[in-house]
Amino acid sequence: MPADRLDATFAALADPTRRAILARLALGETTVSELAKPFKMSGPAVSKHLKVLERAGLIERGRDAQRRPCRLAPDALKSVDTWLETYRRLWDERLDRLEVYLQQVQAQQKKGKGHGRHDR
Amino acid sequence: MPADRLDATFAALADPTRRAILARLALGETTVSELAKPFKMSGPAVSKHLKVLERAGLIERGRDAQRRPCRLAPDALKSVDTWLETYRRLWDERLDRLEVYLQQVQAQQKKGKGHGRHDR
Repeated sequence: MPADRLDATFAALADPTRRAILARLALGETTVSELAKPFKMSGPAVSKHLKVLERAGLIERGRDAQRRPCRLAPDALKSVDTWLETYRRLWDERLDRLEVYLQQVQAQQKKGKGHGRHDR
Repeated sequence: MPADRLDATFAALADPTRRAILARLALGETTVSELAKPFKMSGPAVSKHLKVLERAGLIERGRDAQRRPCRLAPDALKSVDTWLETYRRLWDERLDRLEVYLQQVQAQQKKGKGHGRHDR
């Protein structure tokens, strides 16, 4: 995926309404008017968000001219997932280090208990 | 994570230079001047990007007043990963359906071969 496509995807995701629209579409495809209901937004306002999502490759519109149903296009999100892969390794390593540290602390505590009460 | 934090994170990621800075920091912490070198950018230009990344919780700055080294703060990216979880299920399901479809096609082809040459 070219960098500018990833730019558009991240920019589109930086809005809570657009993320809420994606969450709705994750349940299945629907029309603009149905999408507008829970958001208490006008049709044109929803359409504007849908255009941003469509340009970012996050949704697709059906060909039915009257209904133009929207559905999720998972490929753009898959690209975000692929991009995250590099960083996922980092927090996995951090968790591994934390685990090692906790094991050391526990080992120390056990050792401490061995000498225990007489030290004080 | 509150929605506005996720907004800031996605907005910060919608820029190729900022993503390149994160990729560099994934290799280890460094100073602003070292960061600026490969990007052929002025110190102030890099500092501006770093401020956006810091506000979004994507990086942390060291306390050393002179060097102020930058390092990756993986928690914000972890939140993006958590947010993606809902959608990851969708493309997994899509792959499952594709697999079922391919198995059906293969089964059809095998069946076709059974009757095979005489049909033409």
